[in-house]
Amino acid sequence: MPIDTRRLADLAAHDDFLQRHNGPREADVTAMLATLGVESLSALIERTVPADIRLGRELELDPPRSEAEALDYLKRLARQNRVFKSYIGQGYHGTHLPPVIQRNVLENPGWYTAYTPYQPEISQGRLEGLLNFQQMVMDLTGMELANASLLDEATAAAEAMALCHRANKKAKSEVFFVADDVLPQTLDVVRTRAAYFGFELVVAPVEQLAETEAFGALLQYPGESGRVHDLAPLLGAAAERGIMTCVAADIMSLVLLKEPGALGADIVIGTTQRFGVPMGFGGPHAAFFATTDKLKRSIPGRIIGVSQDSRGGQALRMAMQTREQHIRREKATSNICTAQALLANIAGFYAVYHGAEGLRTIASRIHRLTTLLATGLREKGIQLAHDSWFDTLRLTGVDAGKLHGRALTREINLRYFDNGDVGVSLDETTTAHDLDVLFDVLVGEEHGLSVAALDERAVAEGASGIPAACRRESDFLTHPTFKRYRSETEMLRYLKRLENKDLSLAHAMIPLGSCTMKLNATSEMIPITWPEFANVHPFVPRDQVAGYQQMIDELAAFLVEVTGYDHISMQPNSGAQGEYAGLVAIRRYQAAIGEGHRDVCLIPSSAHGTNPASAAMVGLKVVVVECDALGNIDVADLRAKAEQHSEALSSIMITYPSTHGVFEANVREVCAIVHAHGGQVYVDGANMNAQVGLTRPGDFGGDVSHLNLHKTFCIPHGGGGPGMGPIGVKAHLAPYVSNHVVTPIPGVNADCGAVSAAAFGSASILPISWAYIKMMGARGLREATELAILNANYIAARLGEHYPVLYRGENGSVAHECIIDIRPLKAASGISEEDIAKRLMDYGFHAPTMSFPVPGTLMIEPTESESLYEIDRFCDAMIAIREEIARVEAGEWPADDNPLVKAPHTQADLMDAEWAHPYSRELAAFPTAAVKASKYWPAVNRVDNVFGDRQLVCSCPSIDEYRD
Amino acid sequence: MPIDTRRLADLAAHDDFLQRHNGPREADVTAMLATLGVESLSALIERTVPADIRLGRELELDPPRSEAEALDYLKRLARQNRVFKSYIGQGYHGTHLPPVIQRNVLENPGWYTAYTPYQPEISQGRLEGLLNFQQMVMDLTGMELANASLLDEATAAAEAMALCHRANKKAKSEVFFVADDVLPQTLDVVRTRAAYFGFELVVAPVEQLAETEAFGALLQYPGESGRVHDLAPLLGAAAERGIMTCVAADIMSLVLLKEPGALGADIVIGTTQRFGVPMGFGGPHAAFFATTDKLKRSIPGRIIGVSQDSRGGQALRMAMQTREQHIRREKATSNICTAQALLANIAGFYAVYHGAEGLRTIASRIHRLTTLLATGLREKGIQLAHDSWFDTLRLTGVDAGKLHGRALTREINLRYFDNGDVGVSLDETTTAHDLDVLFDVLVGEEHGLSVAALDERAVAEGASGIPAACRRESDFLTHPTFKRYRSETEMLRYLKRLENKDLSLAHAMIPLGSCTMKLNATSEMIPITWPEFANVHPFVPRDQVAGYQQMIDELAAFLVEVTGYDHISMQPNSGAQGEYAGLVAIRRYQAAIGEGHRDVCLIPSSAHGTNPASAAMVGLKVVVVECDALGNIDVADLRAKAEQHSEALSSIMITYPSTHGVFEANVREVCAIVHAHGGQVYVDGANMNAQVGLTRPGDFGGDVSHLNLHKTFCIPHGGGGPGMGPIGVKAHLAPYVSNHVVTPIPGVNADCGAVSAAAFGSASILPISWAYIKMMGARGLREATELAILNANYIAARLGEHYPVLYRGENGSVAHECIIDIRPLKAASGISEEDIAKRLMDYGFHAPTMSFPVPGTLMIEPTESESLYEIDRFCDAMIAIREEIARVEAGEWPADDNPLVKAPHTQADLMDAEWAHPYSRELAAFPTAAVKASKYWPAVNRVDNVFGDRQLVCSCPSIDEYRD
Repeated sequence: MPIDTRRLADLAAHDDFLQRHNGPREADVTAMLATLGVESLSALIERTVPADIRLGRELELDPPRSEAEALDYLKRLARQNRVFKSYIGQGYHGTHLPPVIQRNVLENPGWYTAYTPYQPEISQGRLEGLLNFQQMVMDLTGMELANASLLDEATAAAEAMALCHRANKKAKSEVFFVADDVLPQTLDVVRTRAAYFGFELVVAPVEQLAETEAFGALLQYPGESGRVHDLAPLLGAAAERGIMTCVAADIMSLVLLKEPGALGADIVIGTTQRFGVPMGFGGPHAAFFATTDKLKRSIPGRIIGVSQDSRGGQALRMAMQTREQHIRREKATSNICTAQALLANIAGFYAVYHGAEGLRTIASRIHRLTTLLATGLREKGIQLAHDSWFDTLRLTGVDAGKLHGRALTREINLRYFDNGDVGVSLDETTTAHDLDVLFDVLVGEEHGLSVAALDERAVAEGASGIPAACRRESDFLTHPTFKRYRSETEMLRYLKRLENKDLSLAHAMIPLGSCTMKLNATSEMIPITWPEFANVHPFVPRDQVAGYQQMIDELAAFLVEVTGYDHISMQPNSGAQGEYAGLVAIRRYQAAIGEGHRDVCLIPSSAHGTNPASAAMVGLKVVVVECDALGNIDVADLRAKAEQHSEALSSIMITYPSTHGVFEANVREVCAIVHAHGGQVYVDGANMNAQVGLTRPGDFGGDVSHLNLHKTFCIPHGGGGPGMGPIGVKAHLAPYVSNHVVTPIPGVNADCGAVSAAAFGSASILPISWAYIKMMGARGLREATELAILNANYIAARLGEHYPVLYRGENGSVAHECIIDIRPLKAASGISEEDIAKRLMDYGFHAPTMSFPVPGTLMIEPTESESLYEIDRFCDAMIAIREEIARVEAGEWPADDNPLVKAPHTQADLMDAEWAHPYSRELAAFPTAAVKASKYWPAVNRVDNVFGDRQLVCSCPSIDEYRD
Repeated sequence: MPIDTRRLADLAAHDDFLQRHNGPREADVTAMLATLGVESLSALIERTVPADIRLGRELELDPPRSEAEALDYLKRLARQNRVFKSYIGQGYHGTHLPPVIQRNVLENPGWYTAYTPYQPEISQGRLEGLLNFQQMVMDLTGMELANASLLDEATAAAEAMALCHRANKKAKSEVFFVADDVLPQTLDVVRTRAAYFGFELVVAPVEQLAETEAFGALLQYPGESGRVHDLAPLLGAAAERGIMTCVAADIMSLVLLKEPGALGADIVIGTTQRFGVPMGFGGPHAAFFATTDKLKRSIPGRIIGVSQDSRGGQALRMAMQTREQHIRREKATSNICTAQALLANIAGFYAVYHGAEGLRTIASRIHRLTTLLATGLREKGIQLAHDSWFDTLRLTGVDAGKLHGRALTREINLRYFDNGDVGVSLDETTTAHDLDVLFDVLVGEEHGLSVAALDERAVAEGASGIPAACRRESDFLTHPTFKRYRSETEMLRYLKRLENKDLSLAHAMIPLGSCTMKLNATSEMIPITWPEFANVHPFVPRDQVAGYQQMIDELAAFLVEVTGYDHISMQPNSGAQGEYAGLVAIRRYQAAIGEGHRDVCLIPSSAHGTNPASAAMVGLKVVVVECDALGNIDVADLRAKAEQHSEALSSIMITYPSTHGVFEANVREVCAIVHAHGGQVYVDGANMNAQVGLTRPGDFGGDVSHLNLHKTFCIPHGGGGPGMGPIGVKAHLAPYVSNHVVTPIPGVNADCGAVSAAAFGSASILPISWAYIKMMGARGLREATELAILNANYIAARLGEHYPVLYRGENGSVAHECIIDIRPLKAASGISEEDIAKRLMDYGFHAPTMSFPVPGTLMIEPTESESLYEIDRFCDAMIAIREEIARVEAGEWPADDNPLVKAPHTQADLMDAEWAHPYSRELAAFPTAAVKASKYWPAVNRVDNVFGDRQLVCSCPSIDEYRD
């Protein structure tokens, strides 16, 4: 073999990651181009992306780093974060994530690469995890129903407010009462939301609830400075006066405190962060939302319910899937889409692993330590603001400056109130030794207090900060699931059993159109569990988070270059939240320039349902713009509608490439028309994966876009969240993005309220996107986009011979996804797109997106990460299924007994002694050699959604039902 | 609920881990004791462990730490290691473990908790991984056969020497030639081994091989100081003179160098560490061992071969399993048992992921950088010892002191030769920037060299350090497996597919007698991939490894207390190695006190085959001591044999509790008899899990024991390694344990040779055992032992009603395992212990140990980590199987067609259109409701071992065979 004559630079590993991220090899690209009859990748791009919007240059980014280099760099940034012990509280607390859960869930691609469980037959594992979460929330809150997570406590509170308004039809008032001891960031978000709903907020001491006329009220339990008092009388009085009540409760405190359900709350919300989920400088964490049974049809977010499958077996699935934005669109009062599935699962598993006894020990320890702290402080003459507490004390009349200085010396963060009071919140990680240090800081090193002696006295006296009336009396977590998995071995097996029920990217391609299920590389995931990123409270002083700040700034700079916008706001913690934040920025800007009256938002008929929902939430009237037969925006109609609403035109929301998977040629014109009428252009970033490195929304006319970092920028879907939806804005909108009341953001107007609980949303997962961009570099990002487009066009070409492909661009290309039309087939054979989706499971695949944006179709997005091997395997499956349909069409198999309508097939089917179908067992479950080599089994047969929605059961089934 | 009145200490989390490690809950213990009719756990222990050896006190250990505390503590220790860039070479090199492999193999319990693949039907995943490893080794070395790993390069060399002697029957010489540029630690180990085999070592310049009379020779390629020269003439001359040759080769260099097979080597050995396995301060790593075809029946270690299953499908399994110690016992020349399966899998996957092109890029980059370094140094007038190189340069005539000082300033380790020369070895992690720094250090900061300019020139000139005759000409890694998995997505799916073929502790109990398959807790595993432990070269200066040293010292102190010995030697990196090291220490000690003539070793007939093999390897004559009908050592026979051999008595090797799973009551007497005759007592530590906290071998008469850290002390089995076998010795033996030539160990005599390549064996996995002991504490360790005994007795009680239980102690108790006798059943029904083992797979379990120590039996060891739930599930399965056997006995099912002889059943069986068996499909694969809830599928039907051994195929099957 001759000496390698490549230069050292080419022998270096810097561009290695590109080869790992992308699926097709060089030879594959050649073969695929040959199939398409296109001479080169750049020729394909030229005929796909309209010339007038092509970037025409490489992005200006740092040269790519290898995986090892990127991790080294990030490690150096991480070390610039100084991880102090934080006693700040305010909704964020230290916690121990049990290692068995960390490694086998949070760090396991089998869990984190799964998609939202829309296909229940291949999602029973995480559905069970989420059902556990719901049961845990119901038990601890004492409510009859809980959803499977919202984004954070603050947005949960805002959702609760909207629900109160929606459900409290008798109320005449437009006032929403907020107790003045609600967490400041919660109030901040509620205030933003209320403004555009047109609600009046009354913020007052909780006792004034009795005197206020309101449609709803929000109370904090315990209060934000630690007070625990009996809310029952207040909640009772409110109910009598027709006020719906929402209690924001600390989940750990509920182990010892009387549950809000027993106090009379209508809604209970909060965060489950302290159940094992690292603080992560603000997120992601799962918020909970629990209600009484009578609100079950109105509860926002995802609810897991129990139903049955076609064999009559128990099967879980998302209940009432079609409510909310799918149907309501502009009538929606919530645009909630992403949940925090991965984090909800973790919190649920934390409860499963500890069980009631474990949680009681943990909560009792926290409370005891707090009691000892209170006792010691009082002994030393320090005054406390309240006589009651669970885990939080507010010290009053102290020398805050002195305490602050001492605290910093000991690497401790306390909470400093504006009035000079000092707050201390203890948590699961606090030890007796920590208490000693706290005495040093709060009293002085000569304090002379002994924790052991204090403890002895406390035990003898039965000392407690919880008033007798507030003590919990009811049992919780009594279901067997919360009792069996106490040893690590049992827990590990439970987690693995659940994991192996689910189909994730670790098994096969998940070709979901509009969801961009690309590689979530291990290197990108590794940093998020580093303690320097994980164990940081969001409200620490800025000088402790220099590493976070630099990482966020760098990521923002990358995204500015990628999008062509001037500024990035990292706050929105989901795509829908980003839409909301972007539209709010537009409205604020227009108000500021005296055009606050503009309240019409144009939305093409092809838009995702979230768009009109978001628009409605900021008080915009939605006017629908028609699409032409090719699926493109009907420019004539747009022009007409813009004319018609010229005076009132606030904005347009478009998706690019369109939800039909096409680069519309006239996007510049569309933007220009709206601008000409004084409107702003919102470009939905859902399809950004087709743009990166080729075109930029900020260049072709966008004023604002959200970026789904969990699509284009590699944050994994987590089985239904977390997501992250920062927005890019042009300079004129930059002062109007979300600010934050506790940790203000430079450059943003002070009066701009928040949309999320934390200033930078789910900050701890930002390293994922940072690492992706850093390791890909400009060429890598562009090539990824090109390969995503190539893969989609290759699929369109191969499947186009068997299924009609709906919508293509001017030169016959699709963008990064393609839609195949099942309607003609259904007419001919009775086989529906759902049958095909379910049959794909027998072939080992997740279904493409069903009936979006067009009913009766399948939308397929392969992404750049899928190899030609896998894409061919998928196409082979689709073609084999087409042949199966042909046999139904030909009458060879009856319409009601063929492998499609009976799909998916399970192990239970195959065990049947009698096999009465006209097709074989082998065809049913092992239709191809590839499947034989590695079979993924759906856990249940086809799930009956209607049955489950009719008889809504959202708690863990009883053990007897398990026995069946 | 009342205030929790427990003291803070009891509310603290310190003893939490105990609850996680142990399976049975308090209520379970009560129920199990009731089944046994014993009033308390301590009563059970009293009737099980003989009174005269009971410890009677709690071990003196630190109070237990919680998982978080132990990890914090260990993190602080880790930070005391200073991770410099090491250019030391000498067989250990920096490497990048691809993150996708790190997370999904090394950090994944699905891989690391699996057992050795003795049951191939449930081990096809790791068998394929190991076959890849063999193929990789064969391709790179150019040999016809390779095994699936040995412990390290040095022991592989020692094994090669033994093989040469065994296979070279014509040779008359007892001389083994070792080239003087063999790695020093290899020579050290070979020297130890040769001494007890009675071989004479001749160490000389490699050219002198041509003039030496020898049975074998060991050469290094490239030489240890970097020289690359053509070995073909020397190897050819040696062959002509009847000398068998072994080449120790650097695996990375073989990418560019002519393969030793083409040069004429008979055996090629080396380490695969630099293929992605962290240096870990010495290990664990997988060594390779490759030979010509004609040595295939003599190759030591495990070999994976291709065979077929009962349906005729391709199936992998360990070939020729019954060779070696099982059969040879005292005739053995190797006691190899543990391999390094996990690490071999990692190295194999590294090759799969990079493929030939990737490896060529990596090796070419390393070589280019070395060439640039050489060029630059020469330009600056620095002399090199050799004109050829792959990755290593030896600088001669330099001011080593000055260089040393500059290197330390830049946090760089170089190799310093005794004569003042300085060595530099580059590796995969070296960058152009590192080269700049090296020039700073080696030349001085004013060096003025430009790496880019040097590179330009080198490319133009085709510069290389590899002589033309030594350049590789042949292709490698041409099998499709090494071509397909280039993207991370494809690789991830490949790893997951393989993982899911295998049954591990993540699925179910693995009740292997004598193997102690207990929990390998996540907290214990987390530290091993921390860079501060992983990226440390074993030969760095001691002041850079203060953290390692403290951790090792603490672990040694723990083990001293646990065993009652005075000193622990951490060097042996497997249990068998520990036996060897312990016996060597005895022989050295006896020689030192003038009793070197003692050469008889008493071994009970019940001993594990490794015992006599180890004894034979240190030149001891094995005299077998009989056992009585109860399986206990026949004391009369022992006394007689000890008398008879009194003069020559060196030692006895006993296992305690015995391999029959019984605490023999007279163990003190046994030890005393041997001591009375001047012998030493070796207590095999395989069953230590029944002793910890209850009794100590050092107290009842042991002079030395090895401890299988991978059994009792939680190092996972890794699918067949790594293991770790440190030895505990009494003070008189302490100076005679293994030393190390490169990094001498204080307190050990200087002339004591090494048994392993690194001073502390597989140091990087020691944190696992450290964490286990730290988190359990004295009470925890004792309770674990008690529960292990309880679990075993409970199984004996439940199964005793259905199967005869062989051997019990005086009071009817078993120790931590029990043996059930299948012979009577087999006589009655024809169903064998193997049929039961295979049928257990259908029930989702791994088989117990088969036919050890007694043919026709099953030995079951549940460990303390299994819950009552799981144990009952296992007993239920065994009882159901007994009922199935009854149906065969009753003639209901024919002897040749019943679910037992046809087991295991696969998905392929179930797909058969025709089902011709007298039992149902459901009974075949879903015999119980528990299986229905979660089915693990064996990947292949029963494997035909004879077929595979007859036609030995140890390479990856051709793609055509895959297609079949």
